[in-house]
Amino acid sequence: MTLTAFLNPRSIAVVGASQKADSVGGRIMGQLTTSFDGPIYPINPNYDTVRGLPAFPTVGAVGKPVDLVLAAASSKLIPAILREGTESGAQGAVVYSSGFAEVGGAGEALQAELDRLVAETGLRLLGPNCLGFANFRRGLTATFTRVPFDVRDGNIAVLAQSGSMGIGTASLLRADGAGVGFWAATGNELDVSTGELAMELLASEEDVPDVIAMVVEGVNNAETVMAAGRQAARAGKQVVLLKLGRTERGRQAAISHTAALAGSYASFAAACEQNGIVMVDTIRELVDVSRGFAAGRRPRGNRVAIISSSGGNGALMADATEPAGLALPEPSAELRARLAEVLPSFGSAGNPIDITGNLVNDLRPVAAVLEEIGSSDEFDIVAYGTVARTLPETHREILLRAARDTDKPFLALAHQPDVLTRMAERGLTCFADPASLIGVAGKLVQAREAGAFLDLTDAPSAGGATVTATTGTLSESESKALLVRYGVPVPTETVVNEEDAAVRAVEDLPGPAVLKIDAAWLPHKSDVGGVIVGVRGREATAAAFVRLVQVARQHRPTPDAAYRILVAEQVPAGIELMLGLTRDRVHGAVVTLAAGGVAAEIIAESQVSVVPFNRSRAQAMVDRLWSGRLVTHHRGLTAAARESLVDVLMGVQRLALAEPAVAEAEVNPLIATPDRVVAVDGLVVLDGGEG
Amino acid sequence: MTLTAFLNPRSIAVVGASQKADSVGGRIMGQLTTSFDGPIYPINPNYDTVRGLPAFPTVGAVGKPVDLVLAAASSKLIPAILREGTESGAQGAVVYSSGFAEVGGAGEALQAELDRLVAETGLRLLGPNCLGFANFRRGLTATFTRVPFDVRDGNIAVLAQSGSMGIGTASLLRADGAGVGFWAATGNELDVSTGELAMELLASEEDVPDVIAMVVEGVNNAETVMAAGRQAARAGKQVVLLKLGRTERGRQAAISHTAALAGSYASFAAACEQNGIVMVDTIRELVDVSRGFAAGRRPRGNRVAIISSSGGNGALMADATEPAGLALPEPSAELRARLAEVLPSFGSAGNPIDITGNLVNDLRPVAAVLEEIGSSDEFDIVAYGTVARTLPETHREILLRAARDTDKPFLALAHQPDVLTRMAERGLTCFADPASLIGVAGKLVQAREAGAFLDLTDAPSAGGATVTATTGTLSESESKALLVRYGVPVPTETVVNEEDAAVRAVEDLPGPAVLKIDAAWLPHKSDVGGVIVGVRGREATAAAFVRLVQVARQHRPTPDAAYRILVAEQVPAGIELMLGLTRDRVHGAVVTLAAGGVAAEIIAESQVSVVPFNRSRAQAMVDRLWSGRLVTHHRGLTAAARESLVDVLMGVQRLALAEPAVAEAEVNPLIATPDRVVAVDGLVVLDGGEG
Repeated sequence: MTLTAFLNPRSIAVVGASQKADSVGGRIMGQLTTSFDGPIYPINPNYDTVRGLPAFPTVGAVGKPVDLVLAAASSKLIPAILREGTESGAQGAVVYSSGFAEVGGAGEALQAELDRLVAETGLRLLGPNCLGFANFRRGLTATFTRVPFDVRDGNIAVLAQSGSMGIGTASLLRADGAGVGFWAATGNELDVSTGELAMELLASEEDVPDVIAMVVEGVNNAETVMAAGRQAARAGKQVVLLKLGRTERGRQAAISHTAALAGSYASFAAACEQNGIVMVDTIRELVDVSRGFAAGRRPRGNRVAIISSSGGNGALMADATEPAGLALPEPSAELRARLAEVLPSFGSAGNPIDITGNLVNDLRPVAAVLEEIGSSDEFDIVAYGTVARTLPETHREILLRAARDTDKPFLALAHQPDVLTRMAERGLTCFADPASLIGVAGKLVQAREAGAFLDLTDAPSAGGATVTATTGTLSESESKALLVRYGVPVPTETVVNEEDAAVRAVEDLPGPAVLKIDAAWLPHKSDVGGVIVGVRGREATAAAFVRLVQVARQHRPTPDAAYRILVAEQVPAGIELMLGLTRDRVHGAVVTLAAGGVAAEIIAESQVSVVPFNRSRAQAMVDRLWSGRLVTHHRGLTAAARESLVDVLMGVQRLALAEPAVAEAEVNPLIATPDRVVAVDGLVVLDGGEG
Repeated sequence: MTLTAFLNPRSIAVVGASQKADSVGGRIMGQLTTSFDGPIYPINPNYDTVRGLPAFPTVGAVGKPVDLVLAAASSKLIPAILREGTESGAQGAVVYSSGFAEVGGAGEALQAELDRLVAETGLRLLGPNCLGFANFRRGLTATFTRVPFDVRDGNIAVLAQSGSMGIGTASLLRADGAGVGFWAATGNELDVSTGELAMELLASEEDVPDVIAMVVEGVNNAETVMAAGRQAARAGKQVVLLKLGRTERGRQAAISHTAALAGSYASFAAACEQNGIVMVDTIRELVDVSRGFAAGRRPRGNRVAIISSSGGNGALMADATEPAGLALPEPSAELRARLAEVLPSFGSAGNPIDITGNLVNDLRPVAAVLEEIGSSDEFDIVAYGTVARTLPETHREILLRAARDTDKPFLALAHQPDVLTRMAERGLTCFADPASLIGVAGKLVQAREAGAFLDLTDAPSAGGATVTATTGTLSESESKALLVRYGVPVPTETVVNEEDAAVRAVEDLPGPAVLKIDAAWLPHKSDVGGVIVGVRGREATAAAFVRLVQVARQHRPTPDAAYRILVAEQVPAGIELMLGLTRDRVHGAVVTLAAGGVAAEIIAESQVSVVPFNRSRAQAMVDRLWSGRLVTHHRGLTAAARESLVDVLMGVQRLALAEPAVAEAEVNPLIATPDRVVAVDGLVVLDGGEG
């Protein structure tokens, strides 16, 4: 059942309605009666009326259809109340009460009872242990907290599991003069989740928020969160998400609170980016970035123009550009000339553009510079500092007009909170800190770039399995045979079980060979002397073969003819990479590309994508890995090697989709030379079982 | 001349005083007359009186002593005005006017004229092109900006070069309910600098601020800034500093504004830490960290206890601890038991301690937990979330009492700005964002740890030069001979110029040898085949010797007997490090210890100290390098090798102090094996000249 009826009830019963203004039931009634204009039925056997409305002893006693039940009663009474509600036709319920799974023991049993009730009746349930929701646009406030109450109506929806996160976010948004149209804190999420609420809001025909600011703890509802992100991105909307518990200790603190399932943070972050969701690290950033997107403009590129009347603010903004992924290009000679004409003689037409403190005396340069930059095709984002109380009203008018006249995101600096709030209310998005402003600009650009990952038409689809075994570890040659089938290049190599065959194989190779024990039961063969490199000529080959059989025998005695030795071309030195395929229990197949060899021991850089992903994403994985520290060590890749590497990533993805029996695959090292990419070793594990 | 008279004038003349309330001269008069109770002389030939005070046509016409001249007049008139001021006994002047060095051309000439005037007369000058200062405690507001005006009196001093940085910082401090006792924006800093103001404030017998929040652009006054940091730290005060222009683009923006000298950011940061100064990256952080220190408590260690009524806030705070350098220990079994007794059954006595949202019903656990933690010796810092408008007044009382009763830093979370401000005014330091709160706690700990670097009694002092040459590059053997003199171990090695001597030298070594061309004119010898490793036995040695002489001849033909070949013990593999000594034009000698070899190409990790530094600092350099990525690659150092490495750092420092002729020294690689440290190569450059 969708949430439409839940969010748009025709009538509401409030169980636990109270005349005491400060009790939970009293507050719900107070806020509901001043917001909702349909029938409200107070349920409380101790009252005849509540706030002038006739009260009923039970929901059943109302005698009329009840669409939504708001329940603020002792947890033990909740199952019976809800059952009675469904009998009166209720399609939805909000359970504010705590005392369920979050307290353990008897609470868990009670929550299980609600679970069954929901499954049986199809009732949509928000909570338990939640603060409820408020649809400010529709005039329906179904929460007992008063916090998000005096927010300005607007195009941001706040969805949080934790009540205090929801309150914190709404409080900071309100302080910054941003508008909130919908607010919910979902608590234990027995049924309705933040993700589903986001989907519902995005699907509704009216009241669609432009920005969904979301705080999630566990990732039980990861799939709907991702779907919401994708849906928002396609509609030109934006999900901005703060995930609690990115570190192990933080995760424990979050988990103990919500008993939700933990997945890998890296996989979650990859999934978010691939689904158009912008992630943030702090509540402050959630608020700032949401405000940035709520302004509605999207940049066409990453070129920011910084215009400042203070060298200090200009310097702080410039300092922040590179880490934010922004370019800070100098204006062209023509544009510089035009800027110089309107700037004071001691201003600077570089970037930052210094309009100098002389604007106290003469505001014309401000308007002229903003007009030049606002209409220039050399920049994608305008960053302006600062709006201040000490400057005349005309200055603020100039800024409002300039922000209106350009089609670029226009972000301004205002150190004074009251100025910031007032300007926000008039439609100019301001930030108190230069680094925050630039950080927001960076997120606008990030969202734009992530748009390239949304279209999955060139991503492979599932099907066509070739692996029939279901458990066990494959030997190196078997692993590579599977990898080759999916387009991962391997060295020229052959498996032998006789000395003469080994000699012939080595002689067939143009250069030196590597001989390795090829056995699923010896996956870490190089640690035990099971790999011999640089083998050339008959004598050395024979010796190497004999030695490897000896080593193998020490580990698993069988007749000699049963040992398999892999004779492979020795791949020349190149850039060592690692390629991994794992299955995350929340996000499914995950492909990782990382620095390998010595670099891997020192740097932890890796690029992660969840499957499926498109070719743009695979290209981004390669390019980002190279733009990290790796590039300072090794020179770049040729275009040919880059394309090979992208092909390999797409191939491993195809393998993941086609072969459900493969639990894990690892290529380490994957060697990239200027003109090709080769999987020098490979290990495939089926279904996570051991061979 | 000190600034005492400047900051505490007995009489003030305002040149450009005006009746127009909104002009610069009008605003100065308005704010001065309502704050200063000594004689004020308006100077303006167009008025008989200004604000009821008799006006004079010139300073000279006052006919009475004038201590301080506030000058708001056209820049061209300023020299004459100041000269007249000094003739009337003025000891100080504030020049608000712009039109000096910051505009270039004629402005630079005018500023040079002021420079000469200051040098001749000893007049202390603030500005030009500045916003002036305000001593709120003394009741002296000598600025035309109205911004920092309604700040609450308090123990934070704000000192900025840039007016807008000063206004921004004061505005945000005010919004957070923090108290500001002194404020100055120093503009072009022709004479009085932020550093000197800081020194003066710290030296004054009364009105000493506890925290100096400083924004600097260039580092012209680095020496006084560092002296102020040191003086503050010794007195239990704190300098918190934001430096503009940490990136090249930011630096350009800052420089174009103030025309100040740029030094290395890494050296500046090292100097700050060694002098007790805490650095921050953003204005927001400057404000938060200053408020944290202004609360007065210093932690005894880095163990933070997080107490939260919301799993969400607890998780966000926990997430932020590790990057902030904080420990989050679990309470001991005894303490857990005591906490469990007072917590609700579904709370958590771990860390974060989850007091649960049940505090809405029962506040007793809050008080009890805070009392346990506040008096426990298992934690050094208390982090509490959250203070909210929705909770009863009693809750806030409990927090205020708990904060008073403990001797630990007590930091609380308040998402609602008005609650944050009100609590601050009542003495509880609150932050809007969990990550900010933890970041502030981290800075408190950092300042404590940096305290170990202040005492320089075990740092060496200058003198005892042995290098007599003044320019040129030393050969490897000469460089090493100098390094050995200062305690840097080198391999067993000898220099020969005959084949037989080379053979004897190799035979004297217990293991294989390295032969290298030893010539100042060939510093990059390994790139041209001038180094041969793994040499053993007569035959190989002779061949290597002949080969190196051939290589040397190709680069600089001379008689064979003039070539010097270094025969050195081949040092076994170990951890490769780089050790550098450079002379920064702002901060003097700087010692750098960094990862070497392959690691250096990938990771840019290095530890920097300015000379002089104490042994604790040298130890910290080694330990921090090892706590970075290096440790994941290599195992740790033995205690013996660590001490050798610290000795080497102290030795290079002695060299820097004793040998002014040495412009640069580099040891690359410095190899650390489990039991020793050896300089495998060395290069010393004298006075930066080329040999």
